Amino acid sequence: MPDARAKKTLKKLGELAQGVVKTVLKGVDPSLEIPSRSLSNVSFDEKKSIIELGDQKQQRQLFNVGHARKFMQTFLIASACKDLIEAEKTTSIRDLYYITKHTMGDSKQNTFEEQDESDPIIEDLEVTIDTLREELNLFASNKGSMVGPITIVDAGDTIDLRHLGSGGWSVPSIVEDHTIQFRKHEAKFVLLVEKDAVWRRLNEDKFWVKNKCILLHGQGMAPRGVRRLIYRFNRELKLPVYVLVDNDPWGFYIYSVVKQGSINLAYESVRMAVPEARFIGLSSLDAEEYQLPANVTIKLDDQDERRAKQMLAYPWFNKRTWQREIRTMLRNGVKLELEALSAKGISFISEEYLPRKLRDKQWLA
Amino acid sequence: MPDARAKKTLKKLGELAQGVVKTVLKGVDPSLEIPSRSLSNVSFDEKKSIIELGDQKQQRQLFNVGHARKFMQTFLIASACKDLIEAEKTTSIRDLYYITKHTMGDSKQNTFEEQDESDPIIEDLEVTIDTLREELNLFASNKGSMVGPITIVDAGDTIDLRHLGSGGWSVPSIVEDHTIQFRKHEAKFVLLVEKDAVWRRLNEDKFWVKNKCILLHGQGMAPRGVRRLIYRFNRELKLPVYVLVDNDPWGFYIYSVVKQGSINLAYESVRMAVPEARFIGLSSLDAEEYQLPANVTIKLDDQDERRAKQMLAYPWFNKRTWQREIRTMLRNGVKLELEALSAKGISFISEEYLPRKLRDKQWLA
Repeated sequence: MPDARAKKTLKKLGELAQGVVKTVLKGVDPSLEIPSRSLSNVSFDEKKSIIELGDQKQQRQLFNVGHARKFMQTFLIASACKDLIEAEKTTSIRDLYYITKHTMGDSKQNTFEEQDESDPIIEDLEVTIDTLREELNLFASNKGSMVGPITIVDAGDTIDLRHLGSGGWSVPSIVEDHTIQFRKHEAKFVLLVEKDAVWRRLNEDKFWVKNKCILLHGQGMAPRGVRRLIYRFNRELKLPVYVLVDNDPWGFYIYSVVKQGSINLAYESVRMAVPEARFIGLSSLDAEEYQLPANVTIKLDDQDERRAKQMLAYPWFNKRTWQREIRTMLRNGVKLELEALSAKGISFISEEYLPRKLRDKQWLA
Repeated sequence: MPDARAKKTLKKLGELAQGVVKTVLKGVDPSLEIPSRSLSNVSFDEKKSIIELGDQKQQRQLFNVGHARKFMQTFLIASACKDLIEAEKTTSIRDLYYITKHTMGDSKQNTFEEQDESDPIIEDLEVTIDTLREELNLFASNKGSMVGPITIVDAGDTIDLRHLGSGGWSVPSIVEDHTIQFRKHEAKFVLLVEKDAVWRRLNEDKFWVKNKCILLHGQGMAPRGVRRLIYRFNRELKLPVYVLVDNDPWGFYIYSVVKQGSINLAYESVRMAVPEARFIGLSSLDAEEYQLPANVTIKLDDQDERRAKQMLAYPWFNKRTWQREIRTMLRNGVKLELEALSAKGISFISEEYLPRKLRDKQWLA
């Protein structure tokens, strides 16, 4: 039996189809209105502090040679998602491509040639009916692990994240509340770490026990499941979120995506971005502050410099503190990896660096 | 307190150092004998069915301008590993690079310039004292997830892998028996899947419950932790191992590394390779056998063809069945992804394909 959320999504999919049927019955050419995902329709909302989509829409018409193929594809994807939800199964976007790919009639025309044709249609569908792909029962890659003082329920299993050893719980891609529910917890905050090696260090040192935090990593850029979970921890459990990344433009970017979303997926910010997220390090000022040896710094390459300069101009980095942060990186001409802290001792990060940062409130918001 | 295994590794590290001290006291120039990891010292042992290292050794002398730096580095790494083991901490090879990197005296000489200098020294140390890097308390990247009818102990936590929801347990990089112990299980076999999306499908369909198997994925090439765990399941629990990969040369390669090890890491085959591992699919004969539509096949590109032709010549693929498998791929000129099975229905893989393969013993050994 589909649950309440599934019913809501099914209703939206049904209305999309019925809308088209109605126009046809009225003798009007069928068409869809799809919110535009182009750059010109993306902006940073200063008040909400997220990157979001504007109101521009585009028409997709069946009786237009330039639109017909995409029109057909949109309903093919919508129909497959409806089947998925009704069957209570989930699948990957790669799988959905194979499920919906077929050769039409006696022609040599395929419904989709490559996955790069079906992926944007999924995004179209998400924005058109205002639904996350996870609600369409589609998942992205499984990445990231989690431990912490919290019990969750996942697909009917009660999991105590306090006792998952050195490995931790694999964060699935779909973490919506119909799949994952939160139970008893003693967490005071959430710490997202860019690198799994650093996560392992913090887990081994029981940093999360001593500091009562939920500890996650995203193996680089935080995947959708991790972002959505952090969002839920922040909203539902009112937990502050700290992000710990390398001191380089890529680390800053990872943080900024967690905090206000990305330009590419601007339509999702409203349910993925955590504007309250705090950047706890590595800061460009840390090498001096924590007296790290000069030989652990790495020279910025041309791409780093270009990226850092671009970031100076982004409205979401247009704060005194962030301008100082990025300018310091450019002036010093170097970047730092999280592992560089190990030059001060293997557990320096868990026993000195992070506790001091938290105690002295040395983060950027 | 270091456990028995740690003590054994510490003893080996101690003997390495004492050996050098002894030669110095005898007035002899200090040197090390390091097994050669070059291609000329790698061969396939038909009887054991693994790729392994031969007996060639190379000398590393302190009083040789070409060797002195590496000689120093070897002991620097050995000493850092000794500290790690004594502190009962583990770390990444990247971290170890930072830990051991420093500028020597008043010179501008660094002990290591880049990680590509320290990584081979770690491998040298592994072969020289016949120890896995995991026993030196060094870990690689965390990749892969696991569920199944088994209870394990990880770092003191008892974990029931029957109840870890949609996410599963994150397989850590170090799974040696001092960290991970096996408890009660009802598993009849192990299934390693190349792709996490397919793992999720099989988990959601409870394939592992119905078929009593331990279900793992390695997010592509199986990482060291996953390989070592499979090895232990095979040796300690006597479980057969099945490998499910894409039908392309890369998939074949993933299988062959699990089965007989790789040329690059030949020295580890003896404790990583599972010669009994069975290739359960996708086979080049499956498209016809399971009547998959033609449009889900993908044309081999030049690199695929080149790789497939190379594989025909590898001694470990020199069996009638494998020659037929690879020749069929080349003749058909196409490859297949695991997801292609979804063209026959979303749960075709868990409800028809795998059960039939297992029932009819349709695998390659």
